[in-house]
Amino acid sequence: MANSKYEYVRNFEREEILLPNTWIVVRIDGRGFHKLSNFYAFAKPNDPRALHLMNHAATYVVQSIPDIILGYGVSDEYSFVFHRSTTLFERRKDKIVTTVVSAFTAAYVLGGDEYFVKEGEGGGKVLSMEMLPTFDGRAVCYPTWENLRDYLRWRQVDCHINNLYNTTFWTLVQQGGMTQTEAEEHLKGTVSGDKNEILWSRFGINYNNEPEMYKKGSVVFREYALEESISRNEGQETGKAEESAEIDGEEGSAVPAVVSKTQMEKQRKARRKAKVVTRHVDVIKDDFWIQRPWLQSGKPGRLIDDTGRVESRS
Amino acid sequence: MANSKYEYVRNFEREEILLPNTWIVVRIDGRGFHKLSNFYAFAKPNDPRALHLMNHAATYVVQSIPDIILGYGVSDEYSFVFHRSTTLFERRKDKIVTTVVSAFTAAYVLGGDEYFVKEGEGGGKVLSMEMLPTFDGRAVCYPTWENLRDYLRWRQVDCHINNLYNTTFWTLVQQGGMTQTEAEEHLKGTVSGDKNEILWSRFGINYNNEPEMYKKGSVVFREYALEESISRNEGQETGKAEESAEIDGEEGSAVPAVVSKTQMEKQRKARRKAKVVTRHVDVIKDDFWIQRPWLQSGKPGRLIDDTGRVESRS
Amino acid sequence: MANSKYEYVRNFEREEILLPNTWIVVRIDGRGFHKLSNFYAFAKPNDPRALHLMNHAATYVVQSIPDIILGYGVSDEYSFVFHRSTTLFERRKDKIVTTVVSAFTAAYVLGGDEYFVKEGEGGGKVLSMEMLPTFDGRAVCYPTWENLRDYLRWRQVDCHINNLYNTTFWTLVQQGGMTQTEAEEHLKGTVSGDKNEILWSRFGINYNNEPEMYKKGSVVFREYALEESISRNEGQETGKAEESAEIDGEEGSAVPAVVSKTQMEKQRKARRKAKVVTRHVDVIKDDFWIQRPWLQSGKPGRLIDDTGRVESRS
Amino acid sequence: MANSKYEYVRNFEREEILLPNTWIVVRIDGRGFHKLSNFYAFAKPNDPRALHLMNHAATYVVQSIPDIILGYGVSDEYSFVFHRSTTLFERRKDKIVTTVVSAFTAAYVLGGDEYFVKEGEGGGKVLSMEMLPTFDGRAVCYPTWENLRDYLRWRQVDCHINNLYNTTFWTLVQQGGMTQTEAEEHLKGTVSGDKNEILWSRFGINYNNEPEMYKKGSVVFREYALEESISRNEGQETGKAEESAEIDGEEGSAVPAVVSKTQMEKQRKARRKAKVVTRHVDVIKDDFWIQRPWLQSGKPGRLIDDTGRVESRS
Repeated sequence: MANSKYEYVRNFEREEILLPNTWIVVRIDGRGFHKLSNFYAFAKPNDPRALHLMNHAATYVVQSIPDIILGYGVSDEYSFVFHRSTTLFERRKDKIVTTVVSAFTAAYVLGGDEYFVKEGEGGGKVLSMEMLPTFDGRAVCYPTWENLRDYLRWRQVDCHINNLYNTTFWTLVQQGGMTQTEAEEHLKGTVSGDKNEILWSRFGINYNNEPEMYKKGSVVFREYALEESISRNEGQETGKAEESAEIDGEEGSAVPAVVSKTQMEKQRKARRKAKVVTRHVDVIKDDFWIQRPWLQSGKPGRLIDDTGRVESRS
Repeated sequence: MANSKYEYVRNFEREEILLPNTWIVVRIDGRGFHKLSNFYAFAKPNDPRALHLMNHAATYVVQSIPDIILGYGVSDEYSFVFHRSTTLFERRKDKIVTTVVSAFTAAYVLGGDEYFVKEGEGGGKVLSMEMLPTFDGRAVCYPTWENLRDYLRWRQVDCHINNLYNTTFWTLVQQGGMTQTEAEEHLKGTVSGDKNEILWSRFGINYNNEPEMYKKGSVVFREYALEESISRNEGQETGKAEESAEIDGEEGSAVPAVVSKTQMEKQRKARRKAKVVTRHVDVIKDDFWIQRPWLQSGKPGRLIDDTGRVESRS
Repeated sequence: MANSKYEYVRNFEREEILLPNTWIVVRIDGRGFHKLSNFYAFAKPNDPRALHLMNHAATYVVQSIPDIILGYGVSDEYSFVFHRSTTLFERRKDKIVTTVVSAFTAAYVLGGDEYFVKEGEGGGKVLSMEMLPTFDGRAVCYPTWENLRDYLRWRQVDCHINNLYNTTFWTLVQQGGMTQTEAEEHLKGTVSGDKNEILWSRFGINYNNEPEMYKKGSVVFREYALEESISRNEGQETGKAEESAEIDGEEGSAVPAVVSKTQMEKQRKARRKAKVVTRHVDVIKDDFWIQRPWLQSGKPGRLIDDTGRVESRS
Repeated sequence: MANSKYEYVRNFEREEILLPNTWIVVRIDGRGFHKLSNFYAFAKPNDPRALHLMNHAATYVVQSIPDIILGYGVSDEYSFVFHRSTTLFERRKDKIVTTVVSAFTAAYVLGGDEYFVKEGEGGGKVLSMEMLPTFDGRAVCYPTWENLRDYLRWRQVDCHINNLYNTTFWTLVQQGGMTQTEAEEHLKGTVSGDKNEILWSRFGINYNNEPEMYKKGSVVFREYALEESISRNEGQETGKAEESAEIDGEEGSAVPAVVSKTQMEKQRKARRKAKVVTRHVDVIKDDFWIQRPWLQSGKPGRLIDDTGRVESRS
């Protein structure tokens, strides 16, 4: 019994290949998380259990896909950055996006009970088929390092704007006794300074002391030994120049570099040994990136052993 | 603090819209399920727990997305058919594909322990972060009903070919004492008849008596009261004509029909009341489809109540 | 000297394949033809020389690409319909669109002097580099015959609406002594009936007597012996049924029919012998299509020889 | 009479937007030019009339589309480079590609008689509907300057390889009395050195003395006052550094620079005044580009007036 008679239907399949030599960002978003956060009684404006679960799932994604240099998460969204040199799945878009979405979902759901219940203060609810957490996703290509940096800046600025709003809003409701409608009205037309002022003068809250995870979001990446940040040490405004040097190095190698098999195997091992960490830090300015040149270069940095000793340069 | 400075990065996003008035098939595939089936000790060649878990997840997907008329699953893959008239997510491809993949993954993982452990005969293993089940996915458009039917025929013929092979292969190994290499050698160049003969003459196994789920795969859909299959009742070869009539009805309405809000609400309720069932039946021939005209028309059929009584035609 | 070092740049090329089994429409549009029509002193509202030149170029396109079943033109635009079964250039979009645009442009420019000057009444201008006629183009896929028919209906209804407006507008200007602004004001809010009335009562013009080319546009296609239009002969409303039968025939053959090489060669010869004609007829109703079943089927009809005799059915 | 009933067909149209901040290359290719070159009796291996006609058409394209920084042509193909900052037609792919193809075709056909006949040595043939020259086209995006440079290197290396082969091949046939098959056999397996040797030792031809247009192809661009090429003047290997500096400047401005209307108008005027020239020079090494920084920056250089005087820097 031959199958060939119907196999013509494969000709209807389309395969989109993402443009080579561009940074690929896969961004996932929780579907209907407003409703879901009520169902599982997430704390407002930020539920640490829920955010830790997001970070847990993101860590799994970064660990299992070495081509990802970094994940950045805030609220119910996470962006994963693939190095511009990646050839994972021959850069097939659907395969890349769905693999990330599925891995993230799987880790989120399996971790659900642990984070929802055990970390909760008694009120945790186990995951239920009635309200399954799901995520959609998309891929975007960025042709230059600066475009990519601006993408991450966009997300982190958004995080700041939303968190300041939400913190003030829920403080007005939870401590100020306003209804949600009243709080919304109250905040109409206010700028950042106004909100900081409301928090401070009426509730004694210094926004700067809020947890970094809420203010900055979460950055998930492989950590190696930090390089010195020249701009910080020298007290000079040389961050820009430093960064440009990086760009040259990378942009210059337009002809795809041929890495020997031995080298690739070595890099793979280094990546596997590297710890995937979660940090709540600024990614808008240059310091974070200057100290971690492996993010832009895609080449593993120097490992740190358990005693904190850095391996020597090879 | 304005966000607009970086917001230009949104211009790099691309949105693919699937061609209107075509049948959309989203097919998902288990990633690395060969390794996974060893890790969780799935039975060979078919593990009923694993297949039931696939059907469980597919049922969740069909239930939560009413635009899906049918799912067809075999082994670690599942195809979901969206009616050609769907406007879900404005037919945005990424949104449709990732939503299906994420919902399927979530239901599979949450259901994992129940199916893996409780249904197993003692050897079940709970789901572990070491080996998370994940799925990739893709969307394909089919312009005509016959193209779609041929797609499903392709998958079901594939199911038959693979299952006959696997059944014979594992019987040779498990009951015939062959190594896997020997069994592979032994089956080289054999046709269906040869494999049936091996099973019967050497092991007394009549392939026709194998479980339908293994031979036919699984069809998941909303069941209403069946229409009479003229071809069967009349004993005439009129199946084709019948089907063509259906096609006319549909293809004729090129101008998208405007359905009133009341009607749509009524249809939505009918769909919600309809039971999503799993059947292991032939979808290659016409009978299945003639008896269930709602699959092609996209309009709900007549509901069956708990006592088996069919509601009267409205 | 090897070229391989730079050849990696080919990996950046993308090839879009148009969905199989769909009707492909390539529509071309004159670029800046408002300005161009002033430069070459086209008559308003319709310049027969310019329209004949469009038809001349379209005829060249239809003659040189046998996969095109029909062209439909109005003003400075032309739509070319490729049969759904075409595999020209493996259905690569860019290749199909640019080939049509280039062939149309070449024929238009080469024919320019003949049509612009020789047919003009003295005032013709030869083509000049100062104002080269150019066209852009796009491809659209339509999954069903009715969608395609509606596309052509859309264009022909548009032709009617625009021509009635333009005829009235320019009559008010040229014969009624209005400025263009006055004429525009005068026609604001008018419906078809109003414009017909203005033409008739004020200028004694019966719009129905205007040239068919202006009212209906131009249809360019291979003509064979007409089939009888049942709906006309029988005086019955059976056009729909007839048409549906056509649809069945076509839609039923979802598995791409294998045509023998001898047959294909025969069909190619028949197409080459067939005369490509230009008609100014209704394509909204069914008659045109019922009489010319070869347009939908894609199979050549019966040829008419020079004496008007129809070849016998083979 | 409303048109809205059929207007739904517009929903089937797709619009592809080329990725922002990437270099766009539109490459056009002559269709069936082997046959066409025989029909119009082009000289072998290079016909100067035909090449001048290609350059004439390319000049028209570059002149009429200011967003194009450069065209590079060889044989019957031409590549046009749009600056990465272009927003022409909102970067809609079909519009960009078909406009280039149509403009090129129009200029080629209108110029045809002049170049084919008047420049010919008596044997010229006027353009005929029997053999219309047509071109297909495609667009490719390159994310970095180096990728773009490599694209042009690829084409120019190809030009060299093909021209050396063709020159030797046709010399063997025209002066060596070989048949085409014999010449092909003779050249099998030869490398560049072998072909140079054949030309020199058997026919006294020094390949280096062949016309630059044949060996290097044609580069069409806006010429301004040249900048000094540091690498040449200083005799140092600093070309790379210079170039990198350029890259920094450009890549750094990831946020699209806002150019004032006055400035844009000024730049437009400068471009219009700049002479579009055709040169047959090396584009593989850096010199050409270092001397003409306006190609990479997209900003007009300093104009040269008729007396050869360079305008002062503004």
